[in-house]
Amino acid sequence: MKKHNFSAGPSILPQEVLLKASEAVIDYNNTGLSLIEISHRSKDFVDIMEKARALVLELLGLEGKGYKALFLQGGASTQFLMVAMNLLEKRAGYLNTGAWSEKAIKEAQMLDDIYQVASSKDANFNYIPKGYTIPEDYDYFHCTSNNTIVGTQLKSFPNSPIPMVCDMSSDIFSRQLDFSQFGIIYAGAQKNMGPAGTTLVVVKEDILGKVSRKIPSIMDYKKHIGSGSMLNTPPVFAVYTSMLTLEWLKGLGGIAAVEEENEKKARLMYSEIDLNPLFKGFAAKEDRSYMNATFTLENENLKETFESMLKEAGISGVNGHRSVGGYRASMYNALPIDSVKALVEVMSELESKA
Amino acid sequence: MKKHNFSAGPSILPQEVLLKASEAVIDYNNTGLSLIEISHRSKDFVDIMEKARALVLELLGLEGKGYKALFLQGGASTQFLMVAMNLLEKRAGYLNTGAWSEKAIKEAQMLDDIYQVASSKDANFNYIPKGYTIPEDYDYFHCTSNNTIVGTQLKSFPNSPIPMVCDMSSDIFSRQLDFSQFGIIYAGAQKNMGPAGTTLVVVKEDILGKVSRKIPSIMDYKKHIGSGSMLNTPPVFAVYTSMLTLEWLKGLGGIAAVEEENEKKARLMYSEIDLNPLFKGFAAKEDRSYMNATFTLENENLKETFESMLKEAGISGVNGHRSVGGYRASMYNALPIDSVKALVEVMSELESKA
Repeated sequence: MKKHNFSAGPSILPQEVLLKASEAVIDYNNTGLSLIEISHRSKDFVDIMEKARALVLELLGLEGKGYKALFLQGGASTQFLMVAMNLLEKRAGYLNTGAWSEKAIKEAQMLDDIYQVASSKDANFNYIPKGYTIPEDYDYFHCTSNNTIVGTQLKSFPNSPIPMVCDMSSDIFSRQLDFSQFGIIYAGAQKNMGPAGTTLVVVKEDILGKVSRKIPSIMDYKKHIGSGSMLNTPPVFAVYTSMLTLEWLKGLGGIAAVEEENEKKARLMYSEIDLNPLFKGFAAKEDRSYMNATFTLENENLKETFESMLKEAGISGVNGHRSVGGYRASMYNALPIDSVKALVEVMSELESKA
Repeated sequence: MKKHNFSAGPSILPQEVLLKASEAVIDYNNTGLSLIEISHRSKDFVDIMEKARALVLELLGLEGKGYKALFLQGGASTQFLMVAMNLLEKRAGYLNTGAWSEKAIKEAQMLDDIYQVASSKDANFNYIPKGYTIPEDYDYFHCTSNNTIVGTQLKSFPNSPIPMVCDMSSDIFSRQLDFSQFGIIYAGAQKNMGPAGTTLVVVKEDILGKVSRKIPSIMDYKKHIGSGSMLNTPPVFAVYTSMLTLEWLKGLGGIAAVEEENEKKARLMYSEIDLNPLFKGFAAKEDRSYMNATFTLENENLKETFESMLKEAGISGVNGHRSVGGYRASMYNALPIDSVKALVEVMSELESKA
């Protein structure tokens, strides 16, 4: 039986994507060769890479606006360093909204001064700070659009006077935004885009080339752009599977269509959390993430019953992060609303039992 | 029809590995979930990672000798930088045997002084320099064990007075060596180990922690070791498929068994190159690679005939690198000897026609 997969990442992918990816591992496009045993310089793979890069810009509405899409390796954690290496000359401003923001800050601090424009650490990051000022003489401003661990999300972005860099690992392609307000968007693939093993980086070219530091080749966005995202052997399988997921999203009707579904799923989930007296939401209501709903069970005595009911219903991956505890329902693009219905049903059944 | 796949990398993998990897993309181990949509912190995946790491040390004969195996991202090109970041304090010595050595040198030079202990650039890298001296007051010595592009291979390694670092991307697990002579061995997976997307790094722990530089977290071998090769989300599919390939290799009888096969394949290939007057080997005989045989067709007029015969025979991936021209037959561990026989047959048939 296929499970209801609420895993926080790596996470659920569309079934048709999994089928095509699985086939390609045996024989790609009737070539008599597996996708993973052909040259990355072959026409077959170069076409995949170019299609994936083009789909990214098309879906984000960034075609012809001076942006380039790259499929790199090393996860968002590598971007924490690359962003600073490519943009940090003197000082940068960071918004601290959780564990991932903190890691980005820590890594950039290895190179130069970082200033926290605002932080919600005082409340275990259960809200998004607002009303802060971004100094206009800084090199760039960095934020994390969605905080997977605590379940908060930036509903709007500041009007930044300097290039805005955003880690969108956990909500890219999930909602409509004016993506041209960002200088760099980066995202590990393993939530809304594909399997772990590739990282999407979307860069506005004209913000590059302004630091005096010698940038190592493998860390240099300009070199990656110049080589068509093939400075060295790319992670073939992860790029192909991401391309399939982007095609699936386009087929659905793009971000506008999936956003509508994501809103329905989130409304259903949060209604249950709010109306069911057994549960309590963790994040401030106005900042609640549409991707990751975090909640606790008020009565610890019901834990065992609840968890065996979840298991019975084929619900998987809803345990919360250790720093928050409780539960976390991750509702990425590929999660069907029926999975949310199944979870909500178990929660309401627990209430009627209790 | 399954092709004879001589691709230089990404390259041929064992058919049983491809089948298992393909199955896991649909349903891993009857869990009702795909391998690529489960948490990397789940027991299922942690077991895979630990098994892969243990198999590496077992196959290399490095168990209990102070080494740790890591599965990282970013290819050997990222290791060019990481090696220098972790080991380079003042100066390092590099052996320059080809394009990949040159890239390693260039990247390390971003950080500090590099000294070329020897180079074969004078002859387009068609031989391996010998009889050089490694200064004992340097931080480390770096070499490339096999040069995919030109088809040369180090048959023996210098007795280095300082930690020896080796890029074994294209011949790891192909031959028996005393692997304990190395301080660091690194290798992109996409030749003898698995699909593109992960890089094996084997480190002797006691050579670390000796530089004064602040090492960014994502570049720090010690941090990767401390987190069990899971500092951030690992490239799940590439690690799993590598683990399957390592299991396959162990099942064959380990490196000793595959080395015997590799020698047979290389002998067959080079005999044809030497005996057939239409072809000429590129690399110096004593330094010929058992992994990549490079050769040219003496009479350019036969090119079209030869290539259509290759196609007819289902032989794929034998075009040479643009810097050398001609042909290159890559004979990695998973290539059956029958594929070499098929190629040799075409070459000898061409001779009888000409």
